[in-house]
Amino acid sequence: MKKPQIINLKKSILEDNDTDANLLRSALKKHDIFYVNIMSSPGSGKTSTILRMIENLSNQLSIAVMEADIDSDIDAHIIAQTNTPVIQLHTGGMCHLDAEMSKQGIRALHPLASSLLILENIGNLICPAEFDTGAHMNVVILSVPEGDDKPLKYPLIFERCDAVIINKIDSLPSFDFDMEKSFSYIHERNPHAKIFPISAKTGVGIDLLCDWLKSQIGKVANE
Amino acid sequence: MKKPQIINLKKSILEDNDTDANLLRSALKKHDIFYVNIMSSPGSGKTSTILRMIENLSNQLSIAVMEADIDSDIDAHIIAQTNTPVIQLHTGGMCHLDAEMSKQGIRALHPLASSLLILENIGNLICPAEFDTGAHMNVVILSVPEGDDKPLKYPLIFERCDAVIINKIDSLPSFDFDMEKSFSYIHERNPHAKIFPISAKTGVGIDLLCDWLKSQIGKVANE
Repeated sequence: MKKPQIINLKKSILEDNDTDANLLRSALKKHDIFYVNIMSSPGSGKTSTILRMIENLSNQLSIAVMEADIDSDIDAHIIAQTNTPVIQLHTGGMCHLDAEMSKQGIRALHPLASSLLILENIGNLICPAEFDTGAHMNVVILSVPEGDDKPLKYPLIFERCDAVIINKIDSLPSFDFDMEKSFSYIHERNPHAKIFPISAKTGVGIDLLCDWLKSQIGKVANE
Repeated sequence: MKKPQIINLKKSILEDNDTDANLLRSALKKHDIFYVNIMSSPGSGKTSTILRMIENLSNQLSIAVMEADIDSDIDAHIIAQTNTPVIQLHTGGMCHLDAEMSKQGIRALHPLASSLLILENIGNLICPAEFDTGAHMNVVILSVPEGDDKPLKYPLIFERCDAVIINKIDSLPSFDFDMEKSFSYIHERNPHAKIFPISAKTGVGIDLLCDWLKSQIGKVANE
């Protein structure tokens, strides 16, 4: 068996929006708004995880949601059914959100002071990781059917996140997904990432996730 | 229930590599090389589908494979086990391949005349659709666990492809995926797209897919 040859292609585009993101983060903190950015591949269960978070937390916290998509407003309609304030952001083909785009959404959504603001980012494991949205916390969802090797293939998003949610664990019997390997690949990229195995379908694991989220909200508020 | 508000964010980046792609397509045709670009989300089964294509076609055709990834060379190693010529392309963080990057890979891989050249593009439903790689055929894989609504959310890739493979149909009983809806969403975006439900795991549907692929190779060769 021959070892495959490796070609390193050249990178051509760079951007920077860090200052903008830091300013947004501070401004939100002044209003006691905790901003969480949720990222994943298409179809790994961002919307259904957010629904579970709303179910678990809405009697304790004010929640508002920004749904980002290239097209369609399916997800915002689903969230709206819970009577949670929600806005749909269309990127017109763009593959990520940056701080300026965040601000456009926040201005229009106008979340309450002392609330939890959730962004469902564009379904994409690559580009969203390159742009700081101004969020206080970045969460990646990896779903069981995608495979345990994704942290090896999409390093940046796993390096830059605070937590990884492993979703669809109810489907573990149908897929060749090694939970132990996935933990070790994630920690290889990011030793500090918290990992939460859940099933947004059955509700398993949501309690632990939401308890941790609340503890982080308290921590940032007291910083 | 309130109708969610929609904000149209501004698009900032445009590129064009169409001339380059057309030149590459003609050059490959002169050598009777048929170039297929396979795109999908992370983890929808591009590599295992390519393995099934190799299994089905390698006694009739010379095949060569380019594996594109941001990092890791797992997939190229898997393909190499079949003794198929393969090369791993690292994009260094970039989210897509264009014609120039294709050429860099093809120069290094050096596929035989009268062969089938397969590109496994970066796992991403957005950016790869924006860049013509110079391929003669573009194929999108949508897997059952991702959900039937993806053609609504990621329009461009479904508009620009020649065929859609619906993979992991063995997992249909575990997921809320409506096959009829998925066909209608795909054809809403692209009335000419051929659709092939398959399971790369069990092998179901691979015959039909490969028969069609062979018919397309013959068609382009005789144009």
